[in-house]
Amino acid sequence: MSAQYVIGVDVGGTTVKMGLFTAEGDLLKKWEIPTRTENGGEAIIPDIAASVRGVMAASGIVSEDVRGIGIGVPGATRSDGYVALCPNLGWRNVYPGRLLTDILDGIPVKVSNDANVAALGEQWLGCGRGTKNLFMITLGTGVGGGLVMDGKIVNGANGLGAEIGHICVNPAERRQCTCGGYGCLEQYASATGVANTARQILAKSEAKSVLDPETVTAKAVFDAAKAGDAVAMEAAEVLFDYLGRELQNLTQTVEPELFAIGGGVSKAGDFLIDGIKRAYDRYMTYSAYRAKVVTATLGNDAGICGAARMMLD
Amino acid sequence: MSAQYVIGVDVGGTTVKMGLFTAEGDLLKKWEIPTRTENGGEAIIPDIAASVRGVMAASGIVSEDVRGIGIGVPGATRSDGYVALCPNLGWRNVYPGRLLTDILDGIPVKVSNDANVAALGEQWLGCGRGTKNLFMITLGTGVGGGLVMDGKIVNGANGLGAEIGHICVNPAERRQCTCGGYGCLEQYASATGVANTARQILAKSEAKSVLDPETVTAKAVFDAAKAGDAVAMEAAEVLFDYLGRELQNLTQTVEPELFAIGGGVSKAGDFLIDGIKRAYDRYMTYSAYRAKVVTATLGNDAGICGAARMMLD
Repeated sequence: MSAQYVIGVDVGGTTVKMGLFTAEGDLLKKWEIPTRTENGGEAIIPDIAASVRGVMAASGIVSEDVRGIGIGVPGATRSDGYVALCPNLGWRNVYPGRLLTDILDGIPVKVSNDANVAALGEQWLGCGRGTKNLFMITLGTGVGGGLVMDGKIVNGANGLGAEIGHICVNPAERRQCTCGGYGCLEQYASATGVANTARQILAKSEAKSVLDPETVTAKAVFDAAKAGDAVAMEAAEVLFDYLGRELQNLTQTVEPELFAIGGGVSKAGDFLIDGIKRAYDRYMTYSAYRAKVVTATLGNDAGICGAARMMLD
Repeated sequence: MSAQYVIGVDVGGTTVKMGLFTAEGDLLKKWEIPTRTENGGEAIIPDIAASVRGVMAASGIVSEDVRGIGIGVPGATRSDGYVALCPNLGWRNVYPGRLLTDILDGIPVKVSNDANVAALGEQWLGCGRGTKNLFMITLGTGVGGGLVMDGKIVNGANGLGAEIGHICVNPAERRQCTCGGYGCLEQYASATGVANTARQILAKSEAKSVLDPETVTAKAVFDAAKAGDAVAMEAAEVLFDYLGRELQNLTQTVEPELFAIGGGVSKAGDFLIDGIKRAYDRYMTYSAYRAKVVTATLGNDAGICGAARMMLD
C-alpha cells in the first residue's frame, strides 16, 4: 500500500524536531537538527528538506509513500500557509510550505502555528484522545493557546486564533506587556507572571515566607505553596483565578470538551489543575457544564505529532 | 429538479416565524403563527408541522421538493439536536427536530440556538455575505452571541458556544447577574445594562444632564450622547469599552473576519459602531489586524434565513 507515512516538523528557535509516523499514529523515528536563523532563516527549509530526504532514504521510503509533511512554526500562520513574521526564525513574508514542497518534488506540505499544532497533537495522541474539541493552554515563559474544533485546527482569518496570552484580562493594569498592551493574561499566567505576582505580594506583605524576591521563580512559588507558605499560596491563587476566569470565558465562547494545560508551569501537576478547576467552577454560574481540565501528556513531542496529524485529513 | 426549497423556522416566546426559500437564498414566502407555550410547549412542533404542510400545499410543493427544515430555538442546543431547557417555550429534555421530522414523513430537520442561527443568516444573506467567519453580537434586553466559522455554526459541546452575554468581564462587580454570576458582559452591554450604568453615573455626578434616572433607557442615553450630554457620553463610553475589550478577546480567540452587531441597541447606528471600534482599536495591541465591525442588516429575518441555510450543507 502506498502513502502510508506522514512526517511532522516542529520548527523552534534553536532546534527543528522531526518525526516519522504511520497513518495510524505510530512514531517510527524521531530526530532533530539545529535551526540556522542567520540570513533571514533562509537555510531552515532547505535544511529540513535535506534531513527528511536522508531519513527517507535510510528507511527505504520513497516520495509516493509519504502522504505529506506538516510543519509547526513559532508565529501566526494564515490558512493558506502565509507567514508574515517569525521573529525567532528571522522569517518575514514567506510561504515555507511552498518552498519545502518545491524542493521535495511535490510532497504535500501544510503549515500552522506551533501552539495550534501542539493542541492537535494532544488531541490525536495525547490527553485529548477521543475528544473532538480541545483548547490547549501552554504556560511557559509566555502563554500560548491552541484550539481544535471537530478535529481541526482553528487558525482564524490571519492565524491569530487561540492567541490568548494577549487577551486583556485586567484593563486597570499599569505595567505594560511586551505586546504594548496592559493587563494581558500572559502578565499573570506565565512563569514570569507568577514570579512577578509573588514579588509584588512579598513587597507589600508582613507575613513570613520562604520566598526570596531576588530569586523567586514559578516553581519556587508552587513548591512553597504546596508546603503551606501563605504568601506563595496567595500568589498561586492569583494565577488560579485568572486562568479559571479565562476557562469560563473560553467555555462560553467555543465550549471545548477539554482544556489541556501544558508548558513548564504545568509541571506543578494536580496542585495547579485543582486550583484552576476551583476557580473555573466559581465563574461557571450560567451552566452546569464543565469541560475537563487536565495536564498535557506529550511534552515536547506534541508539536511533531500535531504537525503530522495535519496531513491525515 | 427536485429538492429545490428549504424552510427556516425561528421559534420565539410569542411567535414562530417561518420562511420558504429557494436553495439560492430567495425568500419566496414569510409567515408566522403564535407560540403556544402551555403544557410544556407540547403544541409548538405540531403547530409548526401543520402550518408548514398548509403552506406547502398552497404553494404546490411536495415533500420531495423540500431539502429540509431548519429551526432556531431560544436555548442551548447540542449538535445532535438535544435541547435540555427552553424556559421561554416550556421545553425541557426534548429533541424538537426528531418530533418534526416524524410528523412530516421524514423531511430532514436541524435545530440550533437562535443566536447562532441568526449569525448564520447574516453570513448567508446579510452583512456577512462573502465572509466565512463571523461573530454576531446581539445587544437587546440581554446579550447574545452567534459564531460562524468556515460557514458553519459553532455550537460547542453542549450548545454553550458563543453565549458571551455571561462571560465574566468584571470580577469586582457587587451586583449579581440573573445567571448567578457577578460582572457578566450582559450587565453592562445590554439595553438594561446601559440604562443601569447611566443611573449609577447620575447618582454620583454633579454634572447637568437631560437624562432622568427614573425613566432612562438605552435609547435615551444614545440620543443624549449624540446631542453632547456629558453624562450620557460617559455611560456610552462604558459600553464601548466593555464591547471593545470583548472584541479584542474574541479576535485573539477565534479571529473572525467580521463582527455583526444586532439587537435593539444596534439602532444607535454609526455612533455605536464608531465607539466600539475606537475601544477595540485601543485594546488590539498584539496585532495590526482588525476585524470589520458593522451593524447586522437582516433584523428579525436573520433567524429564518440562518435556519434555512443550515439545510444547504
